[in-house]
Amino acid sequence: MAQPRFLLKELAELLKAQLHGDPDSVITGVMTLQDAQLGQISFLDNLHYLKQLRQTRASAVILQAEHLPQCPAHALLVKNPYYSFALVARLFEQPDEFIPGIHPTAVIGNNCEIHPEACVDACAVIHSNVILKERVRIGPHCMIGERVVIGADSRLYANVTLYTDTQIGERVTIHGGTVIGSDGFGFAQHQGAWYKIPQLGRVLIGNDVEIGANVTIDRGSLGDTVLAEGVKLDNQIQIGHNVQIDAHTIIAGCTGIAGSTRIGKNCRIGGGVCINGHLEIADAVSITGMSGVSRSIRRSGVYASSVPVQPYSQWRRNTVRLRQLDDMARRVKKIEQKQEENIP
Amino acid sequence: MAQPRFLLKELAELLKAQLHGDPDSVITGVMTLQDAQLGQISFLDNLHYLKQLRQTRASAVILQAEHLPQCPAHALLVKNPYYSFALVARLFEQPDEFIPGIHPTAVIGNNCEIHPEACVDACAVIHSNVILKERVRIGPHCMIGERVVIGADSRLYANVTLYTDTQIGERVTIHGGTVIGSDGFGFAQHQGAWYKIPQLGRVLIGNDVEIGANVTIDRGSLGDTVLAEGVKLDNQIQIGHNVQIDAHTIIAGCTGIAGSTRIGKNCRIGGGVCINGHLEIADAVSITGMSGVSRSIRRSGVYASSVPVQPYSQWRRNTVRLRQLDDMARRVKKIEQKQEENIP
Amino acid sequence: MAQPRFLLKELAELLKAQLHGDPDSVITGVMTLQDAQLGQISFLDNLHYLKQLRQTRASAVILQAEHLPQCPAHALLVKNPYYSFALVARLFEQPDEFIPGIHPTAVIGNNCEIHPEACVDACAVIHSNVILKERVRIGPHCMIGERVVIGADSRLYANVTLYTDTQIGERVTIHGGTVIGSDGFGFAQHQGAWYKIPQLGRVLIGNDVEIGANVTIDRGSLGDTVLAEGVKLDNQIQIGHNVQIDAHTIIAGCTGIAGSTRIGKNCRIGGGVCINGHLEIADAVSITGMSGVSRSIRRSGVYASSVPVQPYSQWRRNTVRLRQLDDMARRVKKIEQKQEENIP
Repeated sequence: MAQPRFLLKELAELLKAQLHGDPDSVITGVMTLQDAQLGQISFLDNLHYLKQLRQTRASAVILQAEHLPQCPAHALLVKNPYYSFALVARLFEQPDEFIPGIHPTAVIGNNCEIHPEACVDACAVIHSNVILKERVRIGPHCMIGERVVIGADSRLYANVTLYTDTQIGERVTIHGGTVIGSDGFGFAQHQGAWYKIPQLGRVLIGNDVEIGANVTIDRGSLGDTVLAEGVKLDNQIQIGHNVQIDAHTIIAGCTGIAGSTRIGKNCRIGGGVCINGHLEIADAVSITGMSGVSRSIRRSGVYASSVPVQPYSQWRRNTVRLRQLDDMARRVKKIEQKQEENIP
Repeated sequence: MAQPRFLLKELAELLKAQLHGDPDSVITGVMTLQDAQLGQISFLDNLHYLKQLRQTRASAVILQAEHLPQCPAHALLVKNPYYSFALVARLFEQPDEFIPGIHPTAVIGNNCEIHPEACVDACAVIHSNVILKERVRIGPHCMIGERVVIGADSRLYANVTLYTDTQIGERVTIHGGTVIGSDGFGFAQHQGAWYKIPQLGRVLIGNDVEIGANVTIDRGSLGDTVLAEGVKLDNQIQIGHNVQIDAHTIIAGCTGIAGSTRIGKNCRIGGGVCINGHLEIADAVSITGMSGVSRSIRRSGVYASSVPVQPYSQWRRNTVRLRQLDDMARRVKKIEQKQEENIP
Repeated sequence: MAQPRFLLKELAELLKAQLHGDPDSVITGVMTLQDAQLGQISFLDNLHYLKQLRQTRASAVILQAEHLPQCPAHALLVKNPYYSFALVARLFEQPDEFIPGIHPTAVIGNNCEIHPEACVDACAVIHSNVILKERVRIGPHCMIGERVVIGADSRLYANVTLYTDTQIGERVTIHGGTVIGSDGFGFAQHQGAWYKIPQLGRVLIGNDVEIGANVTIDRGSLGDTVLAEGVKLDNQIQIGHNVQIDAHTIIAGCTGIAGSTRIGKNCRIGGGVCINGHLEIADAVSITGMSGVSRSIRRSGVYASSVPVQPYSQWRRNTVRLRQLDDMARRVKKIEQKQEENIP
């Protein structure tokens, strides 16, 4: 396949960007500021990398006007360099072609509706009454349970498991090893043992959702677990039964959300966060990585609770005090009272 | 399939519940208090939902006697509403039928004993010398290693991997993507590199255990990793080599337990908890979500260590102080001493 | 298969160990100090188990000279008992034989180079242009994407997914359910929604790397995600795009490393740790379990930030104070100032 080539002025036109430098310089690829070579275009989004901008060997850089003075290369000036870069990077993506049809080793149940433009790869197993719309792609070893519906242009990579009755919207991407629709974790205690609560609900995934690798999303107990349109989940995330996540919320890896919690629109949730069950998180809430949320958050804003690392010896001394904190607070109060009494 | 229908008096009899309201009202389904409609029965277990009880449109509610005055619907009075609800919900579950036998695409090793009432679904791979008892169900793409034994009525959903020599009891449920019997994480340092310790033990899973999706349980290094009867594990849990978990302990999602730790009976461990290796946790210990356990817990009781989220600006100010806590404690001590000296 | 048998003097020779006791005692297996029986050899590495040493029924124990007085059995004295034990345990491992060749149910793409000594197990799916070197073993249900290269003597257990262009070194072990090369988590915000950044890089895995079960490693966005030789990852670890982990670093389970972070050589990172993106961690850094790292660590040493569990009532009192810590610090400052003024 021929390497894609563009003139810088063509990219400027695509981005509606102001061009500084040679409009006819040839761009043959995208790369980071640090590793870019002649012919490649890069971008500056995170100011952490300003030093790399000054030293870059890229032929061109996409950036905001204010950083132009520090740019040694040709430049495309835009408002949102990361987004503009994404548009350019798309041009250099390997075309991701696929041949429609059902691989002879795939196993298809009764009464399925598989669009002729859909693709079911090797060893996939599709149970009965499944509907796959146009251009759906099912990767090798996927297991699609009964009555699952998958909307147009959605793609499941390899080893994905969808339990019965899961509904997937259009243009949804699900990465390898992810399990959707497994039983929620519901047990009632009875005579010293745990008795299983039947999990009768479903999982509903909206349009334009992306779900990372080895994610788990449980089916509802009663009612459904719902991810609204445009939600983005990173890898290794756990979503409990009956959780509802509203549109365009984005969640980083290793985060867990316990059952029946509702998360608003346009939230940004960091990695390694744990959110308790039965809570409500308002719209436009940001939660930094490794925070623990045990109460509802009613107001938009940024929230945090992680404890940053310290050298071990310092951590040990401080941690002992942490367990005595209430005692210390009482002593401070007492000192204040004595001082009050003594000062005339 | 016909929708199941019951009279309220039939459900009262099943639950041995006291019935308030119309014994002949017809119940055709189960639902949450919030979403229930005419003909559906709901329950009140978590007082968080008292407000929803007052507004419910359910035809009947299962609850404790003390909440009857706030119930606008017919009522079944019981001691343990969640358990009673589970019994009723079972009546409305989709019958989960399966056809015994081995799918023609499954691959079966030498010398296996597969009960004629067992079911091996499409593309499952069973290595040699495996024993599957009556009514065992092996989902699509499961991989069952050599010499594995699975007891009667156990079910593995799709994409489950059992390494060699794993032993599974009766009525065990294992959800999709779970890996049992992988090598424990044992390496000895030698000349700047890591040398692998052979992992020679097995994983033994007792009767009535349920294991969620994408869980990992490592085989023992020497001796075995053991989950006793009735243990329940949520999704994305990691169990290290030689861990022993005693009967009826329940563990929520994303929790990790490091090697050789022993956990007692009837413990309740929250989500996102980390428990160090080589510890002992007594019977009936509860650990709240996102706690870190680095010492043995010898006494039954509730334990916690999570730090709840705060607004970011407040968190930043407090977190700086956290690193100075030992210094502050020393200063408080000094203040007290001075005060002591000054007050006659 | 005959049980392996060794004389203690043979093991002493293998380990270059000083032998105390009967050189002709027969060793037929390895076991923990606690569970060892006559004929078995054990070891003492962790002083936590000194009490078990005194009570062991093992026929022989591998230990350091200083613990000989407490050993009731024959002894092999060495400097690094854990490493020496690993060498002995290898002798008792089940020989892990396999038959080279491609299982008839495996699906092989065009233009692959599969060495005749390699083994591709049942239902594995290999896409086009894949290279598998000598003695590579691909487990059941593995999915190997286009242009993947796997070096000699590497083994993938079941249900492993390698996306396109992944490169795996020699003698690499990858456990079940692991996904390597999935898209990094990169989205640019644009008009209230998230626009996907193409993920154009690869994952490169060096020689002698071991990767646990249900791990996820994302492909680079631009440039590659790299694990250098000898790196060891436990289960359920998440490695973000463009992360670089240098040689012989070892990471325990459930840890997450966000994008573009670089980790040095010979680091030891505990379980449940979260490391933010775009950081640099120096060589020979140890981070204890459940720590959160939000800044670069420039110096070798041990670092920690976990909060250890307390009884719940104590935790509640202390946690309230935690949110008032800055206020308390200011009050202490004020007290000191007043005291200063008052004391002549």
